[in-house]
Amino acid sequence: MKIILSALIGIAVVAQSADAPWRDQGVLFLKRSPYARLKDVPVRAVTMGDGFWAARRRVNVERSIPTLLELLESNGIVDNFRRLSGRKQVARRGPLYTDSDLYKWMEAVGFALQSRDDPALRATMDRLIDDVLSAQEPSGYLNTYFVEEKKPLRFTELVRSHEEYCLGHLLQAGIAYYRATGNRRLLDGGIRMADYFVENFGPAKRPMFTGHPELELAMVELYRTTGERKYLDFAGYLLSGVDRERLKLSDRDVRYTFSGAPFTSRKAFEGHAVRAMYAASGATDYYLETGDAAYRETLDRLWRDLTQGKMYVTGGVGSRSDGEAIGEPYELPNAQAYGESCAAIGNMIWNWRMLMASGEGRFADIVERALYNGVNSGMSLDGTLYCYRNPLESTGEKIRNEWYDTTCCPPNLERVLASLPGYAYSTSDRGVWVHLYHSSDLAWRLEDGTGLAIQQRTEYPWKDAIDLTITPASAKEFSVFVRIPAWSAQSSVEVNGKPWEAAARAGEYLELRRRWAPGDRVHLRLDLQPRLTVSNPLVRENAGRVAVERGPLVYCLEQADQPGEHTIFDLSLAPGTFQSEFKADLLGGVTVLRHAGVASPRPLATQPLYSPAALRQPEAGTPVTLTFIPYYAWANREPQAMAVWVPDASAFRTN
Amino acid sequence: MKIILSALIGIAVVAQSADAPWRDQGVLFLKRSPYARLKDVPVRAVTMGDGFWAARRRVNVERSIPTLLELLESNGIVDNFRRLSGRKQVARRGPLYTDSDLYKWMEAVGFALQSRDDPALRATMDRLIDDVLSAQEPSGYLNTYFVEEKKPLRFTELVRSHEEYCLGHLLQAGIAYYRATGNRRLLDGGIRMADYFVENFGPAKRPMFTGHPELELAMVELYRTTGERKYLDFAGYLLSGVDRERLKLSDRDVRYTFSGAPFTSRKAFEGHAVRAMYAASGATDYYLETGDAAYRETLDRLWRDLTQGKMYVTGGVGSRSDGEAIGEPYELPNAQAYGESCAAIGNMIWNWRMLMASGEGRFADIVERALYNGVNSGMSLDGTLYCYRNPLESTGEKIRNEWYDTTCCPPNLERVLASLPGYAYSTSDRGVWVHLYHSSDLAWRLEDGTGLAIQQRTEYPWKDAIDLTITPASAKEFSVFVRIPAWSAQSSVEVNGKPWEAAARAGEYLELRRRWAPGDRVHLRLDLQPRLTVSNPLVRENAGRVAVERGPLVYCLEQADQPGEHTIFDLSLAPGTFQSEFKADLLGGVTVLRHAGVASPRPLATQPLYSPAALRQPEAGTPVTLTFIPYYAWANREPQAMAVWVPDASAFRTN
Repeated sequence: MKIILSALIGIAVVAQSADAPWRDQGVLFLKRSPYARLKDVPVRAVTMGDGFWAARRRVNVERSIPTLLELLESNGIVDNFRRLSGRKQVARRGPLYTDSDLYKWMEAVGFALQSRDDPALRATMDRLIDDVLSAQEPSGYLNTYFVEEKKPLRFTELVRSHEEYCLGHLLQAGIAYYRATGNRRLLDGGIRMADYFVENFGPAKRPMFTGHPELELAMVELYRTTGERKYLDFAGYLLSGVDRERLKLSDRDVRYTFSGAPFTSRKAFEGHAVRAMYAASGATDYYLETGDAAYRETLDRLWRDLTQGKMYVTGGVGSRSDGEAIGEPYELPNAQAYGESCAAIGNMIWNWRMLMASGEGRFADIVERALYNGVNSGMSLDGTLYCYRNPLESTGEKIRNEWYDTTCCPPNLERVLASLPGYAYSTSDRGVWVHLYHSSDLAWRLEDGTGLAIQQRTEYPWKDAIDLTITPASAKEFSVFVRIPAWSAQSSVEVNGKPWEAAARAGEYLELRRRWAPGDRVHLRLDLQPRLTVSNPLVRENAGRVAVERGPLVYCLEQADQPGEHTIFDLSLAPGTFQSEFKADLLGGVTVLRHAGVASPRPLATQPLYSPAALRQPEAGTPVTLTFIPYYAWANREPQAMAVWVPDASAFRTN
Repeated sequence: MKIILSALIGIAVVAQSADAPWRDQGVLFLKRSPYARLKDVPVRAVTMGDGFWAARRRVNVERSIPTLLELLESNGIVDNFRRLSGRKQVARRGPLYTDSDLYKWMEAVGFALQSRDDPALRATMDRLIDDVLSAQEPSGYLNTYFVEEKKPLRFTELVRSHEEYCLGHLLQAGIAYYRATGNRRLLDGGIRMADYFVENFGPAKRPMFTGHPELELAMVELYRTTGERKYLDFAGYLLSGVDRERLKLSDRDVRYTFSGAPFTSRKAFEGHAVRAMYAASGATDYYLETGDAAYRETLDRLWRDLTQGKMYVTGGVGSRSDGEAIGEPYELPNAQAYGESCAAIGNMIWNWRMLMASGEGRFADIVERALYNGVNSGMSLDGTLYCYRNPLESTGEKIRNEWYDTTCCPPNLERVLASLPGYAYSTSDRGVWVHLYHSSDLAWRLEDGTGLAIQQRTEYPWKDAIDLTITPASAKEFSVFVRIPAWSAQSSVEVNGKPWEAAARAGEYLELRRRWAPGDRVHLRLDLQPRLTVSNPLVRENAGRVAVERGPLVYCLEQADQPGEHTIFDLSLAPGTFQSEFKADLLGGVTVLRHAGVASPRPLATQPLYSPAALRQPEAGTPVTLTFIPYYAWANREPQAMAVWVPDASAFRTN
């Protein structure tokens, strides 16, 4: 009965869309994107059920979004707009890019409203939109920093000015709110400023470039939303780097911003991690519309560069605090890792775009790795504290704060959680794809218009079983693509209780092609055996160390869970097997992993820095039981030591 | 005959000193320093012979010092003075601290002239001194940056202004030239500015602090030189940090500068590495005069902090490019190491002062470690190219340059090489100390005034034998302290052909107390067996790795010396023994070390970043012979890969 209902909702969506095209548009709107092999589905087409993300999404709407608005207000970020329209007599506050923080918060609200309407929140948004747009100049220019005595500096400091970055976030916020409500007011404000850019800048006009990439992807999304080719062309102009000379950009500028040179000339990631991830995302969006082979080659090359030597096991990116930068290949320090939350988000949204272009599981694996770990660690379990840095090891410094003067990460995390349903499924001309495993109901349609409902029930990632009920509006042949994560060494797939004939290959989508009738069942079982992961020895910091993973989750040691007086830095993994236990009362409910370990007989911190190798003596350590928790849940108790990569006692000789 | 001559020269020095006290003053002048257990000897009292340092010291005088002056001229650093006296009509060039670069060069010349007079060089110096002092204002103020429209900024930007740093180097240059020639002109100019400081700043006057410590040690040396207590008191004021509040110094300022807070409140090194080392040096100088127990406790605590977790095996200091900073304990990355040449020099000169305070071998061990490795690496063998950074691993980036806009390191390296004879010996009330092993002739006196000559002959560090001939003016009982380096596991000492009765203990000075008659001989043999050094496992980057050392020298792999196509990052050390060979035609003459190694069967760079530990397979590598060269000599051929810490194949299990 419930199944039939879902199917009807799906058909209802189809029926409504003709009048309200915004209802059909997802996180991206790829329906007309010629080089998108996959098309994402509207956020509202997916109703998330109970499970792993439910508590975080609830906290996001009930705590994170409201408390962050309070902070944006109390820190003057909204008043920066009101002062320009004379509604408030205050001084401008905060660094020059604060407008984008409010816009990103508004985008999060736009996504939240796509999952569940909330008239009070809409009313708040409408008031804020009015505050924002009242600061817009007749020309379309809108920026709270480059005003008054700083007005002459407009577009003269592009490397640092973030004017184009703020426009990108304004457009994304306007699009998200439009897709939530059909209300174009904020979107139209964004378009006015976008038109100001398009009219005034370009090869034959004044030169422009993105000192912080972001506008590229927003311009492509604006093209998708409006159908106006000029926005796509402007994105192409930004990516072309043709105006490097006119802008007198230095090598350092071009390296640090990952912009200003032809995107297709890039051989490797470098510079500011968030900028690099956003640039790659925008370039992928551009590829999805144009199919330009040079872009695809560049993106593939950069993807190998990232995944072969510059990505943390958490999906985090950015090795250095200095310049918030991507490091050299294999430069992946743990305690010193920068791993800005925004960079993990950038990695996730870039790989999502690559997945849409290709349908290849390797991209979905990284979406999942980043989402469950390096993104997920960025927000506290109570939704009010945020990590800017996400190191993989810590001696216990305070890492989560409710507010940063540069508060880019908090609303970024909020928009990801709010938009999450949009990442669960997509379609292709062959059928439907299941990307994220979580209890959820899809009410959408195949690309031929056939209504389709999918009911997914699972306790993933804690449990290994996933049940899908496939309900097309009528029986027909199509494919259901189920994702087999790269880490799932042993996977099984049954359809209506019978094993599927083809093998499930780790890291690929298994195409279940058959004639599907309403209520057909898929039963998928993934391999949640805890596993030990090693690094390439070229990652110096991880030599002789292992990371513990289970399903999509990276685990870590936190001091509070370990026995006795040993610091975690004196503990090593000993030979043994894992015991898993779900602890409902710990950290919002997590599966902990226990394993045999050994403690150094004398604290390492009391031993010399350098000593003759000949003096290395075999010493019996103290047997201990190590308890691992999921990495995303670290730093939710008292500040304490934490480590992802743990010495493997068996990796070293003992004499 | 030669021996007798040396003795006579020693006596001649004694005779001259009454008229020319400057002749008796060494790198430091500790004769009247009540808490200096050891007193250093004048640079001119030691004539360096052939051997390890001879070529470098020759190049220093013949190439480095002249070419750097050309660069200081062509980059406008000297003209910055001339423009103020109207001798040149040019714009000021370079960052705000360039005066100190010229002063440090002048100090190097001062030391060079203490070893060997050179009238042409003296004439050049006298012209330059005239150029410098012609820019001095009647008040005594002398600085080429804070002039004209920047004059109102004097002493308003102490965190960055380097005004006090430049004065420190002016004083050191003036003292070195005075000790070389008896010419006080530059010293008196420095005194005029020092008096300007003393008169205008202090607890009851305007507040002062060292944004870059350096003035502390210079003020103490000025006190030693002039006997004027006010300079020592001013150093004490600078170290006291009493004016932190008046100066409104932030926590960050106090951390980064390692200044501005009471020195005796420091628990650990942090912040800018060179600043920290210079601050500790100045504080030790202050202790040598005052015996303040709180300083000594702080210095001991900081020494443990440095040597237990923050010093490279090369004696280098400074883990981070960001802020040129000392990192967290055990944060000692190799490729990313900053290891500024100036910081290794700071470590050396600080430990020299600690040695003077204590007579303990642990300090001399670090003087030697820094000097032979982390300092020595800073200048190319031809004396014209300099390292600012001294990493312990490299993929082959260009690391040596003839000029840096901040050219602090080149003249700093030059002054160390020029002053080196002053570090070879010292005296105490019990006798004479031999710190550095190198062919040399000491012509000096015991503290009771007895003339003393020592002839030292050795091919150290390439060969293990050191011969000393001890020639007091007349036979008498005193001690000869010979240094037994910490690394010398098996050492033997003979006097006049007979084994000395007491054991030579590594890391200590062996006191040879007896009645010494002219021509008595000491024969010392140290343990130059190549050795493998391991790090504390808390140094993440060195896990499973070893460093190769022989005597005082740290070794490294450079790509050019390795066989076949394997990159050095695919090579590991295999079980085996070392073969040593002196190659006269390689890198100015070095002993290379060969050892069995193994090459990874497949290049590591082609292997995945992360993989399941269960898939680790034992794979037979390719046997190769590894060739190690001394670290100081790296980067003297084509840019190429280099590594100090090499994987030890036997440290990891093979299955």
